[in-house]
Amino acid sequence: MVVVDQVASKGYPEHVSLSEAVKLLEETFSAKNCETSELAIQGALGRTLASDVVSRRNVPHYTASAVDGYSLQSTDTAGATNATPVYLETGEFSWVNTGMPIVDGDAVIMVEDTSVVEDASGLKLKITRSLTQGENVRAVGEDVMNGQILATEGDLVTPALVSLFLCAGIGTVSVRARPRAIFIPTGDEIVDRDHWLANRDVPAGVVVNSNADFAAATFAGWGYSLEVHPILPDDPSLIRETVAKAVREYDLVLVSAGSAKGKRDHSADIFSSLGRMLFRYVRMKPGRPVMAAVVDGKPVVCTPGFPMSCAVSLWSIVYPLLKTMSGEPLSPDDIEEAIGAKGKIDASFLLQYSSSAGVADWVRVKLAEVGGDLRCWPLSAGASVLWALAESDGIALLPESTLECAKGSKVQIMMTRSVDFSKRLLFQGSDDPAIQLLISLIRKRGMDFAIRAVGSMGGLAALGRDEAHLAAAHLLDPVDGTYNDSYIEQFSRGRNWSRRLVFYRSQGLIVAAGNPKNVTGFADLATGSVVFENRQPGAGTRVLLDYMLKENGLASSSVAGYERISITHMEAANKVASGVADATLGIKAAADALGLDFIPVAREPYELVFGEAFFDHPAADALIASLESAEWRTEVLAMGGYEWP
Amino acid sequence: MVVVDQVASKGYPEHVSLSEAVKLLEETFSAKNCETSELAIQGALGRTLASDVVSRRNVPHYTASAVDGYSLQSTDTAGATNATPVYLETGEFSWVNTGMPIVDGDAVIMVEDTSVVEDASGLKLKITRSLTQGENVRAVGEDVMNGQILATEGDLVTPALVSLFLCAGIGTVSVRARPRAIFIPTGDEIVDRDHWLANRDVPAGVVVNSNADFAAATFAGWGYSLEVHPILPDDPSLIRETVAKAVREYDLVLVSAGSAKGKRDHSADIFSSLGRMLFRYVRMKPGRPVMAAVVDGKPVVCTPGFPMSCAVSLWSIVYPLLKTMSGEPLSPDDIEEAIGAKGKIDASFLLQYSSSAGVADWVRVKLAEVGGDLRCWPLSAGASVLWALAESDGIALLPESTLECAKGSKVQIMMTRSVDFSKRLLFQGSDDPAIQLLISLIRKRGMDFAIRAVGSMGGLAALGRDEAHLAAAHLLDPVDGTYNDSYIEQFSRGRNWSRRLVFYRSQGLIVAAGNPKNVTGFADLATGSVVFENRQPGAGTRVLLDYMLKENGLASSSVAGYERISITHMEAANKVASGVADATLGIKAAADALGLDFIPVAREPYELVFGEAFFDHPAADALIASLESAEWRTEVLAMGGYEWP
Repeated sequence: MVVVDQVASKGYPEHVSLSEAVKLLEETFSAKNCETSELAIQGALGRTLASDVVSRRNVPHYTASAVDGYSLQSTDTAGATNATPVYLETGEFSWVNTGMPIVDGDAVIMVEDTSVVEDASGLKLKITRSLTQGENVRAVGEDVMNGQILATEGDLVTPALVSLFLCAGIGTVSVRARPRAIFIPTGDEIVDRDHWLANRDVPAGVVVNSNADFAAATFAGWGYSLEVHPILPDDPSLIRETVAKAVREYDLVLVSAGSAKGKRDHSADIFSSLGRMLFRYVRMKPGRPVMAAVVDGKPVVCTPGFPMSCAVSLWSIVYPLLKTMSGEPLSPDDIEEAIGAKGKIDASFLLQYSSSAGVADWVRVKLAEVGGDLRCWPLSAGASVLWALAESDGIALLPESTLECAKGSKVQIMMTRSVDFSKRLLFQGSDDPAIQLLISLIRKRGMDFAIRAVGSMGGLAALGRDEAHLAAAHLLDPVDGTYNDSYIEQFSRGRNWSRRLVFYRSQGLIVAAGNPKNVTGFADLATGSVVFENRQPGAGTRVLLDYMLKENGLASSSVAGYERISITHMEAANKVASGVADATLGIKAAADALGLDFIPVAREPYELVFGEAFFDHPAADALIASLESAEWRTEVLAMGGYEWP
Repeated sequence: MVVVDQVASKGYPEHVSLSEAVKLLEETFSAKNCETSELAIQGALGRTLASDVVSRRNVPHYTASAVDGYSLQSTDTAGATNATPVYLETGEFSWVNTGMPIVDGDAVIMVEDTSVVEDASGLKLKITRSLTQGENVRAVGEDVMNGQILATEGDLVTPALVSLFLCAGIGTVSVRARPRAIFIPTGDEIVDRDHWLANRDVPAGVVVNSNADFAAATFAGWGYSLEVHPILPDDPSLIRETVAKAVREYDLVLVSAGSAKGKRDHSADIFSSLGRMLFRYVRMKPGRPVMAAVVDGKPVVCTPGFPMSCAVSLWSIVYPLLKTMSGEPLSPDDIEEAIGAKGKIDASFLLQYSSSAGVADWVRVKLAEVGGDLRCWPLSAGASVLWALAESDGIALLPESTLECAKGSKVQIMMTRSVDFSKRLLFQGSDDPAIQLLISLIRKRGMDFAIRAVGSMGGLAALGRDEAHLAAAHLLDPVDGTYNDSYIEQFSRGRNWSRRLVFYRSQGLIVAAGNPKNVTGFADLATGSVVFENRQPGAGTRVLLDYMLKENGLASSSVAGYERISITHMEAANKVASGVADATLGIKAAADALGLDFIPVAREPYELVFGEAFFDHPAADALIASLESAEWRTEVLAMGGYEWP
């Protein structure tokens, strides 16, 4: 037998580190784009100066008062003190505001050191301090002198510089030209925005060209513009021809890879045939398949097709490349800048996190502060790529050397949004879609709410470790059939927790519409012909399953799929809706939302449990008010399967 | 006698704290601007959502592969291990890329767990792992489910959300309308940009309307637009009428105060007559004279006329007001956001700093790192308002309670530019315009250079305290007439410093063009009719003056102005050029730059002195190369009064 799959040595670096990739780009393309533009100062905002800017004026251009007060001859004030004031007659002093020219006198007395008094002979100025020549006088050019260097090549034009340039008589400045960039989407399966939005029933496998909008929006945020080419099919010769033409017309060409079978490698072949490959594959996750080449001295970058991979390659490869081409020095903060981060923050992992060896790991995290400790947890990164990025508060870029991050270990996070942690409650506990609806309602009340679905026991355990403000549970005690009491007693260890019965909800078996496998009860799960989707250990719904199996005298090993885990009701129900599983146990609201059949099993109380950290929290009132709002109750009832106590 | 100046009680808060002012605005104007716009998602970037956004699609909308590999029936893989591989025939497996639909089979095996092998009967797929139903399969809606809340009212639309919305079938979103704002410049002395740039010889007292450009640029940076009204003269009824009209047409009206004599108070009178004053004067420096009123339910803010005061009032008053009107919650980071800060950093004061009691103090600082300690120093803030803002690296906002900041005390700085401190050398020492020219040359070499003019002795002392990488000195020893040797011995205390004689420069008496006071030597300084501008204690030039006075048998007390202090040669010479002083001692280059007369006194060696921290510094080579560059030497010679050793 002969192994057929083989990768030939390509003659260029593969699987480079992120810093090696950036270094290759920096070495190849620095100062490749030396064009400059002369722009009016107000249009130069945010651009980089191409030369030093020298003042053409003195600022001020006249002798001016540095204070509000009276200009006068300093010699007239000799000996003036509080005890021995001097009085000046009208004509010996003139009022002058700060910044106004001094037309008579050689000094200015601050208004605070004077008072205007009246006696028989009229108004007089009473002076209680003696002045020297030039006191409180701004010399010509005191702020800026004619000929002075105001800003240096490479400086960013800020609002302050625009204002300074104008005052110094500078109307235009020379700035570095911005690279002209184009984004070429490729792939038979890609459709454009308008087609996608207009057609709800696009075929399986078809994907919208969302990366083009992401890239254009990202470039805009950086202050660069990006042209988007029409989508190309997976036709190597057409792609080759388009890239070759783009290289002649643009300074930077981005090719968004198609991902059709077997066509994936075309970009590398095309790049190699047009020019010289610089690197292929970067040791990071996601974003690994990024590659770059130099064609006619210009950079051509292939960005991966998956949205998060595309985002990562723009931030970590394309942004430093643009800076290099614009003649700006690279800095350790480039990724933070590229992401548009609102600063960096240190937090500790709320759970153990395992990073892959030898690969830089872009971890999207959410954060919350409980009892003064700021903690973060990664969002499910694999499948829920888009959602995780939009939902995250920030990104931790774990270096290649990171392997295991123990629970509690510190990590630095680039914040992608501003969060006022003092206003954010952290909920950990049993998943319920009704709880998700609270987020908006709490935020409308000026507060914030973060949810981690960790199951009923996970929530109580987190509360016991002071890692949540509140939890939720629906845990059946198999001994006496009560809910929650014994579990709360166990986890609270006598601490002062508070409970609130929020609603009853209907739990049952969820099966495909029409119940094709004819499931009528738990016994049907043990036949081997029904694939069950289970929930994670500690979930109240799993406790209920185990109880029901025991009641029915069934072994868990007899249930096909018992070991399969979904984290939420919707996720589990969706496995059924997709045909990936045949049945799950969950709430009626999930079955209703997906049009699935529902066989009721139990009516269970869903309780919120509040820890000590809850009651002093600024958002506590907002949560209670939201729970009691008619708006929430109406929305919850509309989902189906809920009853108020 | 009757005191005439009196402030009547106005019936509204005066001299409020910054937080009180912002609170008044928040209470008065929150949710005053409830208009919304429906925008295409790509146009909504950077805007705030006016309602929750709910997915209209499942993403993916088909059952997709989660990996690159082969789709197959999971039952066909039963028992497969490395030791007991299973072989599938052509037709029993299909290649599938990540994200592509699964058309046959119920699971996907990763390509890594397979190999394609060939035997007599043709190609086969060798499988070394057994799969369960649904393994490596992405269910419909796994990323985003139809009906799921994607983003909440109040969320900022980011590139990630644009992409997510598109994938979820959302083409437009409802965003909060941005307040329409207008800036009305007032003042008889203000001219517009075009007039100012076209006329070099504007009369004394005339000032350009730079605040309008600053405000518009600042608004643009925040993502808001600002209309600028033509400049109004100081005509109260015209201003009143214009503001009243603007309130009808805009959501926010900014009035930029004139500063002509006696007219300053008109804005308050106008605001009071049109509506209700909210506050006047904020306890901060600069920016104190900001005031706000409510007119027909809309905010009208008067921003002070001085550029830095205007900037501060925009950052600290107008920005939170805009956020409040846009329905965004205020946050402790608002000022940082408003400034466009690149993060916060802690540094220690390089010198003692005294802040005014009861007033929040906006300190513009520069920073450098020597020996691992990041240190900051305030830039002269009073007079050089514009320059200090443009030149600073960041801003420390010292709270009202701050009085004395001891040398070494920690302060938090909002960075207004990105600085790579590892590349920045800190020079402290004798002022010379030739040293200023080095900044550009060093930056062209990818490094950075910060200068503090602290005089020759100040520089050597700083080097002795490890507070500089290098210093410069031209210190005459009055005992033996040598330069620098004895001083360096004294300050270095035997440490390994290095010296470099850079140039000789010509020092002399600088007097007005034509020498109107007929100064011919130091004796003329002691006549009482010549006002002298001196340099700070420790400056080499002051040491030279003291030496020359002693040589001439003159007491320093006989020199009028001996106690007056300028920090640089140019500043001192400029006092002469402005007529604020009659003479100073300084270098020929300063006299030449300002067209002043020069009476030579000495030819002195100017030496750079390098501390231990210099030689390992990444920028050391760039400094040496710049000193030796033909470019620098040509520029220095052109200034006049310099000779190479």
